[in-house]
Amino acid sequence: MSAISALWNAESIAVVGATERPGALGRKPLDFLLRHGYKGRILPVNPKGGEILGVPAYTSLREIPGPVDLALIMVSAERVAAAVDDCAAAGVPLAIVASSGFAETGAEGAALQADLVARARAGGVRLIGPNCIGAVSFNNRVLATFSPLFGAESVPFEPGTLGFVSQSGALGFGAASLALQRGLRPGWVVSTGNDADVTALEVLRELAAEPDVSGLLGYLEDVPDIDTLRVLSASGKPVALLKSGRTEAGGRAAASHTGALATDDRVLDAALRQLGIVRVDDIDELLDVAQAFEFPLRPAGPRVAVVTTSGGSGILAADAVEGAGLELSDLAPESIAALSEIVPPFGSVENPVDITATVLSDPTLFDKSLDVLIADESVDIIIACFCVMAGPDVEKAVTALSKAARKGGKPILVARTGADFLAPDAPAMLRDAQLPDYPTPARALRAASALWQVSRPRTAPAAPGDGPGTPAPAAAATEPELKRLLADAGITVPRGRTVTDAEDAVRAVRELGGPAVAKAVVPGLLHKSEAGGVLVGVTEAEAPGAYAKLAALGGAVLFEELAPEGVEVLVGARSTALGTVLTVGLGGVFTELLDDVSHRLLPLAPGDAESMIGELRGAALLRGARGRAAADEAALARVLEGVAGLVASWPGEFELDLNPVRVLPEGAIVLDAAYTTTPADPAAPVRTATEA
Amino acid sequence: MSAISALWNAESIAVVGATERPGALGRKPLDFLLRHGYKGRILPVNPKGGEILGVPAYTSLREIPGPVDLALIMVSAERVAAAVDDCAAAGVPLAIVASSGFAETGAEGAALQADLVARARAGGVRLIGPNCIGAVSFNNRVLATFSPLFGAESVPFEPGTLGFVSQSGALGFGAASLALQRGLRPGWVVSTGNDADVTALEVLRELAAEPDVSGLLGYLEDVPDIDTLRVLSASGKPVALLKSGRTEAGGRAAASHTGALATDDRVLDAALRQLGIVRVDDIDELLDVAQAFEFPLRPAGPRVAVVTTSGGSGILAADAVEGAGLELSDLAPESIAALSEIVPPFGSVENPVDITATVLSDPTLFDKSLDVLIADESVDIIIACFCVMAGPDVEKAVTALSKAARKGGKPILVARTGADFLAPDAPAMLRDAQLPDYPTPARALRAASALWQVSRPRTAPAAPGDGPGTPAPAAAATEPELKRLLADAGITVPRGRTVTDAEDAVRAVRELGGPAVAKAVVPGLLHKSEAGGVLVGVTEAEAPGAYAKLAALGGAVLFEELAPEGVEVLVGARSTALGTVLTVGLGGVFTELLDDVSHRLLPLAPGDAESMIGELRGAALLRGARGRAAADEAALARVLEGVAGLVASWPGEFELDLNPVRVLPEGAIVLDAAYTTTPADPAAPVRTATEA
Repeated sequence: MSAISALWNAESIAVVGATERPGALGRKPLDFLLRHGYKGRILPVNPKGGEILGVPAYTSLREIPGPVDLALIMVSAERVAAAVDDCAAAGVPLAIVASSGFAETGAEGAALQADLVARARAGGVRLIGPNCIGAVSFNNRVLATFSPLFGAESVPFEPGTLGFVSQSGALGFGAASLALQRGLRPGWVVSTGNDADVTALEVLRELAAEPDVSGLLGYLEDVPDIDTLRVLSASGKPVALLKSGRTEAGGRAAASHTGALATDDRVLDAALRQLGIVRVDDIDELLDVAQAFEFPLRPAGPRVAVVTTSGGSGILAADAVEGAGLELSDLAPESIAALSEIVPPFGSVENPVDITATVLSDPTLFDKSLDVLIADESVDIIIACFCVMAGPDVEKAVTALSKAARKGGKPILVARTGADFLAPDAPAMLRDAQLPDYPTPARALRAASALWQVSRPRTAPAAPGDGPGTPAPAAAATEPELKRLLADAGITVPRGRTVTDAEDAVRAVRELGGPAVAKAVVPGLLHKSEAGGVLVGVTEAEAPGAYAKLAALGGAVLFEELAPEGVEVLVGARSTALGTVLTVGLGGVFTELLDDVSHRLLPLAPGDAESMIGELRGAALLRGARGRAAADEAALARVLEGVAGLVASWPGEFELDLNPVRVLPEGAIVLDAAYTTTPADPAAPVRTATEA
Repeated sequence: MSAISALWNAESIAVVGATERPGALGRKPLDFLLRHGYKGRILPVNPKGGEILGVPAYTSLREIPGPVDLALIMVSAERVAAAVDDCAAAGVPLAIVASSGFAETGAEGAALQADLVARARAGGVRLIGPNCIGAVSFNNRVLATFSPLFGAESVPFEPGTLGFVSQSGALGFGAASLALQRGLRPGWVVSTGNDADVTALEVLRELAAEPDVSGLLGYLEDVPDIDTLRVLSASGKPVALLKSGRTEAGGRAAASHTGALATDDRVLDAALRQLGIVRVDDIDELLDVAQAFEFPLRPAGPRVAVVTTSGGSGILAADAVEGAGLELSDLAPESIAALSEIVPPFGSVENPVDITATVLSDPTLFDKSLDVLIADESVDIIIACFCVMAGPDVEKAVTALSKAARKGGKPILVARTGADFLAPDAPAMLRDAQLPDYPTPARALRAASALWQVSRPRTAPAAPGDGPGTPAPAAAATEPELKRLLADAGITVPRGRTVTDAEDAVRAVRELGGPAVAKAVVPGLLHKSEAGGVLVGVTEAEAPGAYAKLAALGGAVLFEELAPEGVEVLVGARSTALGTVLTVGLGGVFTELLDDVSHRLLPLAPGDAESMIGELRGAALLRGARGRAAADEAALARVLEGVAGLVASWPGEFELDLNPVRVLPEGAIVLDAAYTTTPADPAAPVRTATEA
């Protein structure tokens, strides 16, 4: 059993700073543990000893006989270090430090926090927090928290299958209360505050190993650790994350809240997509997704059929399909024929299938139309839309839907645009039938999208490859050296060589079979073209002059063949906080003005290179738009795969830029290459220098 | 009093097809009118006469003595025509046709519907429907509907200030029930079904004239009528519309539902933005906006200050500002200084201002920090974020917020991420204090955005100008004719003229002062360049040959001066279902691959031309990106304004394409112009032909 799992398995909980004083935070955990019927040992710690709420108190953690699985520390910041030392001395494996006054207050607090972590590690204690609100397990009634949520008279307290971990305690327990209000069943709610030792993601990873967990939700401010993300992904449990600081304004706010480091947010998007982890933008969306995660059915594909009793809901559902990243299914002709026998003439047998309000007088319409959609192999997900439906109608609908879902093994999500007061039993009936239930079609589709995101084949392998790989180039590697490396990796570069003098330059042009490109190779010369370091179309006659001009720039001189016309793209690989990221973008205005690039975390999975290219807004340019010949996308994909393999085992912080890579009608050729080992700014946009 | 206002003013309501049979739809309106205490005359009509639910029934509308303000027709489709004739005979000014079986069923039903409208118009009866669920006024208890909503035991029935009109009855009453569940106060709910005579938008226009209406909401499937939209906009009442069929899939579904015509959805977006009408994408969003429309405070600008008790909520709020089209305010230095005296060290005095949970022990923190933000002139809107807060804390917060809002006249929107069971009185307290209340920061910001959209200075004048204008060109106008028209309107075109023979061509080149552009002027020759109809850089020596070559294409030959280098854009004007629309886009990949264009409905208001250009994703290209000279944006704006004035009074369906317009470092010049009067396909994308 890991130390962290004491958050839900603890058989003994010490509360350091416990007090009976009414209104004091230190009273609340005891109050909650007693009130909600915690079965383990409750161990208040207060220097005064005595009894607290009728429970014998200890003057120190060290005084407690027998093992303590979990300590909740609620003393003021300057007294926390001693409490952690006490945990170490008493062999407490996990301490939650609720106290504020650490890294969130500035440099002094950060030092205090570092000291705390050092003490904990030396003493074999794992730390949650500081600056958090604690944790609760609804299943085992472990309430190591002072959240006012559990002081409310009417807080529902039932076992649940959703695990929710939040860096922000207030937001986490606030969101949990909204989840309870919706009738969701959180089983675990954990706040981790400053994530000084145990991170929110580590807690999610531990929860993923719990068999009762049906889905995991996280609110994060820090950039998540990629290795933990990979383990989470590999667990097979569905995961949705709300990672704030997505915008520049949000990023600044996050830095001032927990000192979170900014990263290129789109790299995180790409990584999560590869790992089959859902990213959401709002608490509401997190809860919508959570509801779908409570139930087991998963789609085999992204094709949606909509069945509706209201034409309006059907249109709204159709409108929402595209934005949800799903597809409106083209129903099989036999399905349309079968529906024509069932659906009234003022309905619709095309998708969205509008069975109209006639279903109220003939409930078999439901069963029959669902039978058709369940049997149709071009349907992976069904969205069932209703408006105002009173109690008995809901019951009939739920019975039909539930039977269909079980029979077909296809998830059915309900959009019920009507108040609960119309059918007070509907929420419970839908839950019992394992049908996720949303007030609007768009929200049902958003949840359906999440189900598809966690079910579709994942493109990211569990961990980066650890084969021998190619060693990284020297920090000062020149363009010809880099191109040799690329050529050795099977990536096409222009034929050419460095020349030694004017005569050799003439020979080089002759060898290259016609007018050539001559380039200065001067380490540190970034803007080669602007510095006059690139000459295009150099003939034999011009070669000596070209050589002299370029040599005067102080470095070697490279002569290369002229590449044919094609579409110019950039390909880059760089180290980031999440690992090495491969980037492709179209040259020119696409990257410079529109930031039209796509990313993948390495290693690539089969198909990744092609889908990276397909994601570019300007991808049509490669496919022969604007009267050009189509470029060899497959060759570009091979370049991406080649670069991915090449840099797989390069250590440290680096950036490799192949810019431009010219994609020809057949083949693709790297015209320029640059390599830097300067520590990359993780927030910096992808470099878009034109040919240097 | 307009006929339509009988929906809420009727002093007598006839129900044609009334019956006492339990479960029958024809029983419900009577049941509702009686149960909810309608004060006017209830007039059941049934061929059998007698009494229905204790109310004397008439065998025909024609038998009813005294005036009938409103008839609700609930007979089967084939009997509706007779009922409408009865309305005409009895002088009933407004009839709601609930019956289905009309245009929504196909061509036969459409003919039946057309006949119905013709009868109604001939008889002086306005028609709502057919295929609708009727209407309700919560204020006057007019219940001309059979929606099951009003059969629910617990339906709240209080007066309200929100008017909601929906083409879809099921969706409309479903959304209304959700509004009631949220504690919103709809005063009017009207469904208009097929909009055969009275449209949903007309009902909204009538409601806008009602003094008690605080805000208007609409669900539309048909393209709205621009004149009615202008009247709505001019009413000053805040309006939000959910117009479905936004996507291709949704558009297809809408066409099959009510036969709605597709339009270029982005043209509608532009028109609504110009008119200060909010467009939403989901029922949830409509209700969020509605809540803000219930209260009177409006922002003077888009600058948001966030005050939060939870760092996490603050970050989420900051993240959501940009997407909401608002700005995170840069607080004044004196505000930051003042906040530094107030906010605890582990909070934040920058925006978002994190006053932390310390406010729970010191509620004056609220008052003090709000005082600072209210006094700061760089703050237009305040978003106040809370998480889990129990009852007494909410009361203190609401008191402080309410005082601040009243004092400063700035709208304050609340994001309360906590369940109602934590503070059961909170919703009522917040409503009484006129503070809109949302569960997440993102939703509060979405509503704040709507408040700003309805408050900011509107750019669309109330109606198109009706000055003398310039007559439209002939349908077969040639390029030189169009260019003359443009030049007369003050728009720069290249110097040049048509030439009569080879010698004249030489003279023309000489007059133009150097190598010229020669173009074939052949009506109907669309792809001039591909047909060899454009020759660039023609010298005096080459002029005779060029003339011969172009003349051989069968039309006139135009010689023009060569324009200097610049950035190429396209400018277009075309008639659409909403009126004449002006379009600007950058040339090349921007329009062809990225559809990077912006639209305005004419007439333009001051500043519109500039903001159109600013909206382009590639606008930076005009500002000297990629090492080019900056182009003369002001000159391009003048071209847009010139074209807007030129086409202002052109009648009928037309499309004028100026493509390319070259924007120079100084000035802008129209290089090619084409004009068609072929009825434009309103769903067609903007034409992006390169220089023809």
